[in-house]
Amino acid sequence: MLYIIAEDFIHPDKIQAVLPLYHELVELTQQEQGCLSYELTHDLKDEGHFLFLEKWETEVDLDHHISSEHFQRLVPEINTYTRLESRFTRMLSFKEME
Amino acid sequence: MLYIIAEDFIHPDKIQAVLPLYHELVELTQQEQGCLSYELTHDLKDEGHFLFLEKWETEVDLDHHISSEHFQRLVPEINTYTRLESRFTRMLSFKEME
Repeated sequence: MLYIIAEDFIHPDKIQAVLPLYHELVELTQQEQGCLSYELTHDLKDEGHFLFLEKWETEVDLDHHISSEHFQRLVPEINTYTRLESRFTRMLSFKEME
Repeated sequence: MLYIIAEDFIHPDKIQAVLPLYHELVELTQQEQGCLSYELTHDLKDEGHFLFLEKWETEVDLDHHISSEHFQRLVPEINTYTRLESRFTRMLSFKEME
């Protein structure tokens, strides 16, 4: 199982414009093969800082997500509202280190 | 529901020393009142960068966690192995913005 944190930094005055795009991305992604969890949150101390908390069964499932129609359509549009580059952290469970 | 990401930056050569402490902290915390999810992961691209992905029912539950015996005992000990200050991000679901 692969964990991903994907972070967007949206211009505060563009948040209302981006929410419907996020809503659609979350809805469609949660139905994807191998998507164990896909939750979008926002940082209480940094307006416009959105964090996707993702869990994927396999790397292949994640690749399919990235090449999906909705990702390829929505993410470029979302990125037109960003003030900083997005950040991605790939993680495994700490139990895999024991 | 409150989301927390708590990040530790452990010296790479101290990882084996800290794992048993993490193991105990995760085990005991997952049994706590209002702990909806408490997962410890490690960053695949930054050795020693550990990320706790947490979901708490209420702020009060989180406060109880921080004042719990195991937190007060284990976290100071874990912190003796860190190379950078820990980082905390508090989030809510993006649905609360819609």
